[in-house]
Amino acid sequence: MATALIILGAGMGTRMNSDLPKVLHEIAGAPMLVHAMKAGAALEPARTVVVAGHGAAAVEKAAKAYDPDVIVAMQEEQLGTAHAVGQARAALDGFGGDALVLYGDTPFIRPETLAAMMAARLTHDIVVLGFEAADPSRYGRLIMQDDQLDRIVEFKDASDEERAVTLCNSGVIAAESATLFDLIDAVGNDNAAGEYYLTDIIGIARARGLSATVVRCDEAETLGINSRTELSRAEALFQQNAREIAQEDGVTLTAPETVFFAHDTVIGRDTVIEPNVVFGPGVTVESGATIRAFSHLEGCHVARGGIIGPYARLRPGAELAEDVKIGNFVEIKNAQIAEGAKVNHLSYIGDATIGARSNIGAGTITCNYDGVFKHHTTIGQDTFIGSNTMLVAPVTVGDAAMTGSGSVVTKDVPAGDLAVGRARQENKTGFAIRLFEKLKARKAKGS
Amino acid sequence: MATALIILGAGMGTRMNSDLPKVLHEIAGAPMLVHAMKAGAALEPARTVVVAGHGAAAVEKAAKAYDPDVIVAMQEEQLGTAHAVGQARAALDGFGGDALVLYGDTPFIRPETLAAMMAARLTHDIVVLGFEAADPSRYGRLIMQDDQLDRIVEFKDASDEERAVTLCNSGVIAAESATLFDLIDAVGNDNAAGEYYLTDIIGIARARGLSATVVRCDEAETLGINSRTELSRAEALFQQNAREIAQEDGVTLTAPETVFFAHDTVIGRDTVIEPNVVFGPGVTVESGATIRAFSHLEGCHVARGGIIGPYARLRPGAELAEDVKIGNFVEIKNAQIAEGAKVNHLSYIGDATIGARSNIGAGTITCNYDGVFKHHTTIGQDTFIGSNTMLVAPVTVGDAAMTGSGSVVTKDVPAGDLAVGRARQENKTGFAIRLFEKLKARKAKGS
Amino acid sequence: MATALIILGAGMGTRMNSDLPKVLHEIAGAPMLVHAMKAGAALEPARTVVVAGHGAAAVEKAAKAYDPDVIVAMQEEQLGTAHAVGQARAALDGFGGDALVLYGDTPFIRPETLAAMMAARLTHDIVVLGFEAADPSRYGRLIMQDDQLDRIVEFKDASDEERAVTLCNSGVIAAESATLFDLIDAVGNDNAAGEYYLTDIIGIARARGLSATVVRCDEAETLGINSRTELSRAEALFQQNAREIAQEDGVTLTAPETVFFAHDTVIGRDTVIEPNVVFGPGVTVESGATIRAFSHLEGCHVARGGIIGPYARLRPGAELAEDVKIGNFVEIKNAQIAEGAKVNHLSYIGDATIGARSNIGAGTITCNYDGVFKHHTTIGQDTFIGSNTMLVAPVTVGDAAMTGSGSVVTKDVPAGDLAVGRARQENKTGFAIRLFEKLKARKAKGS
Repeated sequence: MATALIILGAGMGTRMNSDLPKVLHEIAGAPMLVHAMKAGAALEPARTVVVAGHGAAAVEKAAKAYDPDVIVAMQEEQLGTAHAVGQARAALDGFGGDALVLYGDTPFIRPETLAAMMAARLTHDIVVLGFEAADPSRYGRLIMQDDQLDRIVEFKDASDEERAVTLCNSGVIAAESATLFDLIDAVGNDNAAGEYYLTDIIGIARARGLSATVVRCDEAETLGINSRTELSRAEALFQQNAREIAQEDGVTLTAPETVFFAHDTVIGRDTVIEPNVVFGPGVTVESGATIRAFSHLEGCHVARGGIIGPYARLRPGAELAEDVKIGNFVEIKNAQIAEGAKVNHLSYIGDATIGARSNIGAGTITCNYDGVFKHHTTIGQDTFIGSNTMLVAPVTVGDAAMTGSGSVVTKDVPAGDLAVGRARQENKTGFAIRLFEKLKARKAKGS
Repeated sequence: MATALIILGAGMGTRMNSDLPKVLHEIAGAPMLVHAMKAGAALEPARTVVVAGHGAAAVEKAAKAYDPDVIVAMQEEQLGTAHAVGQARAALDGFGGDALVLYGDTPFIRPETLAAMMAARLTHDIVVLGFEAADPSRYGRLIMQDDQLDRIVEFKDASDEERAVTLCNSGVIAAESATLFDLIDAVGNDNAAGEYYLTDIIGIARARGLSATVVRCDEAETLGINSRTELSRAEALFQQNAREIAQEDGVTLTAPETVFFAHDTVIGRDTVIEPNVVFGPGVTVESGATIRAFSHLEGCHVARGGIIGPYARLRPGAELAEDVKIGNFVEIKNAQIAEGAKVNHLSYIGDATIGARSNIGAGTITCNYDGVFKHHTTIGQDTFIGSNTMLVAPVTVGDAAMTGSGSVVTKDVPAGDLAVGRARQENKTGFAIRLFEKLKARKAKGS
Repeated sequence: MATALIILGAGMGTRMNSDLPKVLHEIAGAPMLVHAMKAGAALEPARTVVVAGHGAAAVEKAAKAYDPDVIVAMQEEQLGTAHAVGQARAALDGFGGDALVLYGDTPFIRPETLAAMMAARLTHDIVVLGFEAADPSRYGRLIMQDDQLDRIVEFKDASDEERAVTLCNSGVIAAESATLFDLIDAVGNDNAAGEYYLTDIIGIARARGLSATVVRCDEAETLGINSRTELSRAEALFQQNAREIAQEDGVTLTAPETVFFAHDTVIGRDTVIEPNVVFGPGVTVESGATIRAFSHLEGCHVARGGIIGPYARLRPGAELAEDVKIGNFVEIKNAQIAEGAKVNHLSYIGDATIGARSNIGAGTITCNYDGVFKHHTTIGQDTFIGSNTMLVAPVTVGDAAMTGSGSVVTKDVPAGDLAVGRARQENKTGFAIRLFEKLKARKAKGS
């Protein structure tokens, strides 16, 4: 049956103490909202509705950046979770399938867990995601009656017997879309907070003779984020897990606790990652590469055998072929670097193509920006770019060409040529000694 | 009533295994002594006396760097805490107010705690700072009699009954200055160590009919440092606390455990700090800025919306206006950078002024030092400094001027002008190929 | 008595999920195998035999890099530990001394422990290294009978009474070489795995009337590595220990958990190491130096009072004399830098000699590579190398000479001379303004 996602993301998140809407705070380089969308996306939903409120424009932008087809529904006032789900009604008007309610501040639910919920829907009208809480104090309890979920009781309303139950409510619920909205219509707000609670639909459904059940997951999956401290703890959990998986997959992490992955980092087997490496989104490193200490990679690809760093920064669009070597204090952006080429020291390579086996000398800069436009630099294979060469783009250096150290290359260099552009050296006899004496005398006088 | 601080800092700190006096070892970028002085300074003391012994000259220098009015009293021999306090007598001769005894190796006592002690002084002659010890084994016990502190008993001298007491002595004591020195006169050294103990004054005072009480604080505040391992643990405690506070204040720390603050770091709300950032003393970052990974900031100011790093180093005197962008492998020292200006790659900007919206190309260097003197570089607004421009200070580049990539700018550039100083490029046909062949032939011959 | 080491290193280490032989995975910058060899080397063994199998060529290379005299014996098939030891028979043919069996994946056994085993050999025919296991579940038990080791029982074969024993087997065994091989001959493979177990020799020896005993060590010494997660935990243990020792030795580590030592790092007293410093193999730092944040050192020597970093990279062959200062974004390789010289910013110094008190300006590069050969740069004392000087090696700059900023130095500079090689600056009036207007107009048209 077709599935629709309803992802709640309207809350302000007062405890975040932020102008940024809560669900846009990031974990592993992606907004929490996107983590929830990504988990749900594994179900291949027919529609995805994000319910936005605080900072709705920013939430919509982030949601659409991940999934252009997402529908954003507005919740102008925050009157409770049932009210929030209700805002998705128009977006799901006439939708015949199931609806799954997720939360934009609950980023760790696994796709496998959601698949288990949808499987349970085949035999029950309503499926709630529950977990055994290590410390159940503050959670709502899932009260079972035989094999049916009978009701959800908030802790403060629970009897002693109910409080003894450790099976807790995650808030994630699946039901047929039409059924869900029918049930929500029956939810009232006659409670201390004056809010419409989604949890109330279970009791209503059972009273109507509908069946309900619970799918269980690890408590860690249900972790919700309400403050920056919780956010950084969630980040730490993500990283701990990602480091474990990388090691099991055959990646050597010398000091795992100092390596930071993004949500989508892919690292090949027998790649070594030294201490203090940061991966932004969009990085793939193939097998047998070495990422040395203090490197920073985003939106780039490192092929087999690459040696990166220490202190290398690969920015989006850096495409490194096999056995490329990028050394210290080097920045690569939007550049294709062919097999075996080397950029070893203190260089900026941006908007460029570098041919196989070329050696780019220390201090080389592709001058890609004229203040308004960006231009491309093309360097052939087997070239030797002398130290401190300025490549004023657009410019092409042919195969097996060289540039003299300290040259400013403003016009193309044909294959096999040597380009030189520098003044002759002149030694001014005794000048240094006289200059120093003069300066020191001035200093002595001044002090 | 006026208050004087007496801060004990004469000890050698044998277990530090160091030539540096113990109280000068640093936590969060400031000597431990300064932490103690800072806590006491919140009381707005009329006089501050630091008792120095080992490395007294260095201790005096550090103390005066923080507070030029501090009085340093010498304790030539270390004969116990009462003896140490006694060395402050001359400095407080005729001082009519209270004296508060603090310790240069106890950096974490909070100003609020000291204020509570001074408040308690209104009703009692002597106030001792105590704490409930989790593991009281090695501490002196504060023995109460009804609501009065009766005496302080060292653990080794304590009866079983006294050992059962968990209220322990921090050593911090407040009393009227004259009373304090009177009591010290009565302290003897008839004990195993032959030392004069400050703790003995309580028993003496009570025998004289004076009143004494205890103000309680958290054990963590009383932490004393005796070895480098304890020092690094104290640093870790400081950092842990500072990271928590920053997050509560609305700062996002992706990986809090990798961010190091100084004792005086100020970070605005909704600023994001990526992993591996180090703050030295004297840094203020306003709201909504981003400090990217591997950045190092000291003595600088980053205004709203600034984007710093990765791999940016801001040194003392870096003043960045709103929306300034400092990129990778860039060092900024003693420089004012106006709104919206960018220094994105591999540059050294020292002793300079850069106007609004100017773009400083990769590899730009302000040549501020002639071997003896430092000189200033002035760059106007809306300029475009080409890559690898050497700005030989003193020099001025006018508004909306440009410099050609690879130019050495030794004289002023008027507004709107383009300065170029570089040799013409010459392509030597086939020269690269012949040179490579020659080199390879020589290598083949050599090997 | 002369001792021979037999170090087992033939296993594939399936759980490492790696093409690299297990014993070549590194801890603290050295293969695990080398850690085991190093511990054994303290006994000054007459012969060292490494038993290799999977990846034998690579294992041999690594073993010989540490000890050129090592004998590598091949174990073509892995038929158990007794079989592995048996492969060393030919290498120890006619050897009259003791043999000590070590493991290439057990890197933490201390030399003192091995010395204790060899001492115990004076009174017993066989000595086994045992440990009290915190959780003995999976280990073989050492079953004592009075003061003799009677047998080693694998957990799965142990009776309840035997399982109650907490003294466990490390696998490390010492015996007279000839005795060891005799006993191995008697080991069968009539067990579930069909393997020849070295542990069986104890029972056989005792049946023959030989004496056996146990030397105890800490469980941590016997840690064996079977997966990358265990490898990174072993690295963490090594680092934790090394950081403790450094602090006890009088080194200040601001944030110990962020400093990574190699197996052979030597740091002097009162040296300060800031957060995020990585030491590769072969580093010695003398007393009173400062290694600032984000520095990376390998194969180098920093003399007293040196100030390194932040963001300094010292590579193999960097020899820094007293009070040398290396600043940010600077790479030093194979270079001798004399007392008081400074390389403060954005420079690459490779294959060079720099004289005392010389000041190397920002952006200086030694152009040491011509595409085939490496050449040397010699800089005298008291020189002033202007910013962005290219030193095209081989080249010599004499004492007290200067180079002008932006110069390409291709020929020697005599002492006291000033070398300049740069074009004159020309200011093209109003050119910048016209160029910007043109570019902006083009952009407006294009958009």
